[in-house]
Amino acid sequence: MAERERRSERALRRGAGSARGGARIEQRRLRNPFPPIRILSDDQVEAIHGAALRILKEIGVRVLHDGARSLFRAAGAEVDDGGRMVRLDGDLIAGLLAQAPPTLTLKGGSPERAVRVGGDAVAFGTVGGPPHASDLKGGRRPGTLEDFKNLMRLGQSFDVIHLLNPAVEPLDVPPRTRHLDLTLYQLLLSDKVPFVFCRGAQAVADCLEMVRVGRGLTHEAFRDTPCAYTVVNTNSPLQIDALMAQGIVDFALAGQLVIVTPFTLAGAMAPISLAGALAQQHAEAMAGIALAQAVRPGAPVAYGAFTSNVDMKSGAPAFGTPEYVKAAFASGQLARRLNLPWRSSNVNASNAPDAQAAYESQMSLWGAVMGGANLVMHGAGWLEGGLTASFEKFVIDVEMLQMFAALFTPLTVNEAELALDAVREAGPGGHYFATAHTLERYEHAFYAPLLSDWRNFGQWTEYGAKDAAARAHEIAFRTLEAFEPPPVDPGVREELEAFAARRRKEGGAAVDG
Amino acid sequence: MAERERRSERALRRGAGSARGGARIEQRRLRNPFPPIRILSDDQVEAIHGAALRILKEIGVRVLHDGARSLFRAAGAEVDDGGRMVRLDGDLIAGLLAQAPPTLTLKGGSPERAVRVGGDAVAFGTVGGPPHASDLKGGRRPGTLEDFKNLMRLGQSFDVIHLLNPAVEPLDVPPRTRHLDLTLYQLLLSDKVPFVFCRGAQAVADCLEMVRVGRGLTHEAFRDTPCAYTVVNTNSPLQIDALMAQGIVDFALAGQLVIVTPFTLAGAMAPISLAGALAQQHAEAMAGIALAQAVRPGAPVAYGAFTSNVDMKSGAPAFGTPEYVKAAFASGQLARRLNLPWRSSNVNASNAPDAQAAYESQMSLWGAVMGGANLVMHGAGWLEGGLTASFEKFVIDVEMLQMFAALFTPLTVNEAELALDAVREAGPGGHYFATAHTLERYEHAFYAPLLSDWRNFGQWTEYGAKDAAARAHEIAFRTLEAFEPPPVDPGVREELEAFAARRRKEGGAAVDG
Repeated sequence: MAERERRSERALRRGAGSARGGARIEQRRLRNPFPPIRILSDDQVEAIHGAALRILKEIGVRVLHDGARSLFRAAGAEVDDGGRMVRLDGDLIAGLLAQAPPTLTLKGGSPERAVRVGGDAVAFGTVGGPPHASDLKGGRRPGTLEDFKNLMRLGQSFDVIHLLNPAVEPLDVPPRTRHLDLTLYQLLLSDKVPFVFCRGAQAVADCLEMVRVGRGLTHEAFRDTPCAYTVVNTNSPLQIDALMAQGIVDFALAGQLVIVTPFTLAGAMAPISLAGALAQQHAEAMAGIALAQAVRPGAPVAYGAFTSNVDMKSGAPAFGTPEYVKAAFASGQLARRLNLPWRSSNVNASNAPDAQAAYESQMSLWGAVMGGANLVMHGAGWLEGGLTASFEKFVIDVEMLQMFAALFTPLTVNEAELALDAVREAGPGGHYFATAHTLERYEHAFYAPLLSDWRNFGQWTEYGAKDAAARAHEIAFRTLEAFEPPPVDPGVREELEAFAARRRKEGGAAVDG
Repeated sequence: MAERERRSERALRRGAGSARGGARIEQRRLRNPFPPIRILSDDQVEAIHGAALRILKEIGVRVLHDGARSLFRAAGAEVDDGGRMVRLDGDLIAGLLAQAPPTLTLKGGSPERAVRVGGDAVAFGTVGGPPHASDLKGGRRPGTLEDFKNLMRLGQSFDVIHLLNPAVEPLDVPPRTRHLDLTLYQLLLSDKVPFVFCRGAQAVADCLEMVRVGRGLTHEAFRDTPCAYTVVNTNSPLQIDALMAQGIVDFALAGQLVIVTPFTLAGAMAPISLAGALAQQHAEAMAGIALAQAVRPGAPVAYGAFTSNVDMKSGAPAFGTPEYVKAAFASGQLARRLNLPWRSSNVNASNAPDAQAAYESQMSLWGAVMGGANLVMHGAGWLEGGLTASFEKFVIDVEMLQMFAALFTPLTVNEAELALDAVREAGPGGHYFATAHTLERYEHAFYAPLLSDWRNFGQWTEYGAKDAAARAHEIAFRTLEAFEPPPVDPGVREELEAFAARRRKEGGAAVDG
């Protein structure tokens, strides 16, 4: 037991659970072997799709961006510039969406960091966007640049994370230059695929230029090589604001991935019925994706789904609810109806990294993974309905994501695995600890946890009776102590830093939202 | 917000979350609408089934009970009384198992407490068997009669619990009379289906007699009316001890449900490979079920699966692991191969009602529910790998089970639910709080949680920053304060109490294990 303890301490010091022995699980290129769960019949999928087409044709979408409306008009939509309304018929939608690639590959900072998107591929991203950071010792505070950098370091440290997302707003950096730091440190602290916020044309141009430099591509090659991604949230119901429309246009022109994600909370920004909320989500996602294709046929896009419900007593958003899981299963079917990659999320509404955070997150993750999601955003670190990035929750989530990665490995059935010789050797009433079959396999037979503590109550108490959150805290900060950034070409680093310095000096970019 | 708070406090005082408003979910008769997840191909199922048949024919099972071996011999098995070995060939197994009923109904203390077993029916049971009880204030202690009674009261209080299981050993009751209290208080504090331990022929006879009296049945009717259930764990590998064999015989004769559950921890009592562990599980389950059918054709049985893995570094059992989930999916397929009801579990290895407890339990539950389990044992309250019954975990689990019950309700797609009129009414950029569609539905639109706290961080902090475990503690003890036992006919109560008193006076029953 003492030996196990020492091993466990060593593993903690090393930080990464995947290095601890246990099953050798490929965490970098995940393929989901399970057919997606279907909650809708084919007829129901068609009914929701049909309702979404009626919404787009009969009601339309308000587009608060003159250029985007012009693009819609040129593509054949019925546009009312006075009401800023765009109406699209089914044939137009079908024609535009058919041009979207069903699968694509995001280039990373090294070949093994490439992320396949679509089909049976699954990729997990870090949490993105909360204004607060929290950890058990430091408490909950407005996010800082150091918090942001530390969370990106955590994102880099675990192979089961494929995509970065600015985990917390660095509120100590001026808004006009914040985008420069967000991009610079994603590129310097990690070789994983970076995220860019749509915060105006100039900010997007700055960020994408840095990504281009970071990946060592010519302008021409960059346009044909997705290296970065963004999320565009429609202003549900049925509205695309200027910033979001601009983001779709900019990303489509730049050939970078845009995930169109309607923010359809049933009962607030979408109908209170799931079928209605899904129809609206589907309409808004199709409108955003159609715009990207109108800008540039073949622009890389994904179908984002975020349908959840609000607590009708308080209006508070809820996540990981039964309704959320149902909407996730259904959204996967709707995305596949369009032959597009599907984005879901790992979300919860808990205020602490406790049992509620874990069970709501698990509900979200099973909805995503068993619904066939390709991209799971907010995969690690999301707390409080997205208002806080938690260091402890990050580690709890990594453990859960690693368990899914292990679940994806095949259950092999052959003579050696059926092990009749070992059954004979152990014999009735015997045990398997010393059989040849066990001795050949014991080091890598099972998933070795990062966080889970399987010691008995006595040992656990002796070592401080630390609950999962307390242990997650230690793992997070030991991982940070042991962190080493990936190699970055000195010339590239210099160019990135010079670019950021110059743009800071020039005053950064206007903050449009 | 204050109003919401008051409502929430009232709901807490009432105890049961299901009474709080929110979706009207049928929790008493759950049907799983999702086709079970398949992790094995049909060929793989046949390969494991074939390996299990080879184990039973070539190696055999050691049966430490003379009468059981005689029954096997009479049925046509090859029996070696010297080595106490029983070998069964495939035809014999197939013939015996074909007599087992694929579905059955357990009678409860009132018509609505009947539990359908098999097909797409799902039933959840309380935790059963831990020697310790724990709650955040009282700490961890050896179980008492009062703990046992309180946990049975909790089991009675939530409709999503269908089956009782003695949640903790009342160690303050002498072993010779403990079975009397376990049965008496299951029958007096609840009208749900009771559990009986296999602790020797006399103890089982006492308990079943009490159940018969409790249900008001003649001896003859009782034999044809399953009213109680037990779990028989084989002594893996490949051994059925005297107590377990006696239990199978007694329950089969009495026409009561026996769940045969091999205790196959891969790497310890079963091969370290999942395919091997599953083959052994399948062999042991078939042997136990065959014995029941040899005793009485058509005896009610279920296929129990408990395959998990040990931590190969310490030998500690692990639960809710990726391997556990895979084994669950596969076990469902193997049980369905035999056309038998399948029993799985809600298990975890955490020492505290924390995030680990929740995510390991969720993994177990998804493995069970999406694997098509009919009976989910240890559904509420299990902690520490089964060594502790936790009051807080009980409430956390009830919340999770209720979410599954809500997930089972259909996602309706029709004109009213697609809500195009509401989309028109809200309009682009509007909101749905006040639409007619919302106002008609808001009271029961969504699952209303028992435990989850969706208040914002400020409100949550103001009300004490209680994490899920702290809130679960309050809910558990408020539920107990509000507890009212179900009506029990005074004559029946008197007869039960007189029976227990007499049997106590007579010295109870020998404790064989």
